[in-house]
Amino acid sequence: MSKFLHPKYQSLSCYVPGEQPRDKAYIKLNTNESPYPPSPEVIAAVDANAVADLRLYSDPEGKCLRQKLADRYRVAPENIYLANGSDDILSFAFMAYASDGEPVAFADITYGFYSVFAALYGSDAKILPLREDFSIDYRDYLGIDRTIFLANPNAPTGLALSVENIEKILESNPGRVVIIDEAYVDFGAESCLPLVHRYDNLLIVRTFSKSRSMAGARLGFAIASRGIIEDLNRIKFSTNPYNVNRLTLLAGAAAIDSDHYFIENCERIMKTRTKTEAALSALGFEVIPSKANFIFAKHNAMSGEAIYQALKERGILVRHFSSPRITEYNRITVGSEEEMASLLATLADILASS
Amino acid sequence: MSKFLHPKYQSLSCYVPGEQPRDKAYIKLNTNESPYPPSPEVIAAVDANAVADLRLYSDPEGKCLRQKLADRYRVAPENIYLANGSDDILSFAFMAYASDGEPVAFADITYGFYSVFAALYGSDAKILPLREDFSIDYRDYLGIDRTIFLANPNAPTGLALSVENIEKILESNPGRVVIIDEAYVDFGAESCLPLVHRYDNLLIVRTFSKSRSMAGARLGFAIASRGIIEDLNRIKFSTNPYNVNRLTLLAGAAAIDSDHYFIENCERIMKTRTKTEAALSALGFEVIPSKANFIFAKHNAMSGEAIYQALKERGILVRHFSSPRITEYNRITVGSEEEMASLLATLADILASS
Repeated sequence: MSKFLHPKYQSLSCYVPGEQPRDKAYIKLNTNESPYPPSPEVIAAVDANAVADLRLYSDPEGKCLRQKLADRYRVAPENIYLANGSDDILSFAFMAYASDGEPVAFADITYGFYSVFAALYGSDAKILPLREDFSIDYRDYLGIDRTIFLANPNAPTGLALSVENIEKILESNPGRVVIIDEAYVDFGAESCLPLVHRYDNLLIVRTFSKSRSMAGARLGFAIASRGIIEDLNRIKFSTNPYNVNRLTLLAGAAAIDSDHYFIENCERIMKTRTKTEAALSALGFEVIPSKANFIFAKHNAMSGEAIYQALKERGILVRHFSSPRITEYNRITVGSEEEMASLLATLADILASS
Repeated sequence: MSKFLHPKYQSLSCYVPGEQPRDKAYIKLNTNESPYPPSPEVIAAVDANAVADLRLYSDPEGKCLRQKLADRYRVAPENIYLANGSDDILSFAFMAYASDGEPVAFADITYGFYSVFAALYGSDAKILPLREDFSIDYRDYLGIDRTIFLANPNAPTGLALSVENIEKILESNPGRVVIIDEAYVDFGAESCLPLVHRYDNLLIVRTFSKSRSMAGARLGFAIASRGIIEDLNRIKFSTNPYNVNRLTLLAGAAAIDSDHYFIENCERIMKTRTKTEAALSALGFEVIPSKANFIFAKHNAMSGEAIYQALKERGILVRHFSSPRITEYNRITVGSEEEMASLLATLADILASS
């Protein structure tokens, strides 16, 4: 930190991304990446001509991709906002709706970035604890008159709220924006998309990182009422108008054109998830039933930290969080069938020798 | 705008990027893009394997590219910060050093985004007018105890300050960060790089957009003291840790490996600039001597707006600004020899028929 930094940022705790150690090759099950590459259409779209065209700026309005997303999700292009990853949308939403002491609410156990944004933008944050079983009690959010951030399905638990209950939250907080972070929705949860035409306070956040195998491309999008999309654009055009690069716009458009490929991948991942959940239970793990591309699990015979460390020593990375309520758990990304077989064999070995 | 937007953002005027009309093919001389594609090494680096790896997140620390830039510019990797375009760095610098009423200073005629950032972050902005000839009087900035943003060379004029005078500004404002925006420095101006080891308050902002033909890749970098780089990382890791995508990191590294190619392109562009400046003068234009990849010029027989319109009708885009002091001028990107020949022939034609 320099001596010049504004005092309000001097005590910030940053978000800590999943580790990317380089000492050896790991099976990476710690950042919820897809085990499958993007579609052949995406790979074909980013060709030498596209790279040569990097000399030109990208379209700051992303018209082509926005139109494709609008068609795909049956909304107007004016209901779509493109971003440099969904974190950018969450950051802008905190800025637009929850900065400088404005009231905001989110769960105690959820995407760790919400509390970082709240600190950065000086929100008045109310942290609502999950129930004992890690589910969200939607009634905690009724009529609270706060901007609300809900990951659905939630991370790192994988549990989802029903659209019916989210609608009650939207209905009872008409003066506040409710942000539904659907980063993991394509793995079996219900999307709030049908509500977008009825609630001008609904902001749905999506990403190409997980279900569309494009974590490294940095592409997120929001679906919301026209006014909310205008707000996000106002912040974007006041900070970084070209925040999505040319190759990512091309790759994103090709991904939508080949959506069947990604839907099949999601189905494969869901099958692998079911199988892995059963196998983990058979090994004595307590597994939270997941609607995401990860599994949250603990074992009564060994601590979460010890399991994380033992796996890492054996070349498998999972995500361990130190926050007290969940410290006995690990979040394990659902990888390929082969990766899961390695994980299960390694865990059996670790447990047998513990 | 929605009814939910925080009042402080309701009257923002966004930055307006150069137009990108699609009604026909234009010769684009309006956004300072390079007429030359990135190097063959860059094009080779972004291959099908690299695109397939998009399923993985990018390295949030950009270690490989930071090391290459550190070697290239003879600083330590801890003196380098990578960003999603240089706008991102400018935005973070306003946030870190000039938000919430903190004092900042910049010129009346300069990169238009500075005033947008100042409004967004609520800076106390002092606007210092350029001299009559559009040069910056460095003495205006001595001992003013404000965070200072200087584009060097300046945009849209193309005029540069000497490093000697910038050093006086740095020396006389030891309690404030001085941001030198060197987006255009590779086209003949002096870089402040030699000062970076001596002044902990110097923040140099660079981009791959212009001299390295990668406007569409969104890659900027900062060179500064370790403390300032830590500040920028603190904001990045509190907003969007993966803000530079995998393909851009690869392309950037390949660009540094083939820097001779880009240096040659800059030399070609400078030659074309000299030739075009002379030809414009011969056509009766008043030309400001440029150290950038654009030329700022006006004609006494025809208004800036009329020239801009006449060129656009004939398929050539240049950038016209409506701000009163410069409304008689147009900013013309230095394109290829062929593009400049078309421009000059078209201007001769326009002036002859006016």
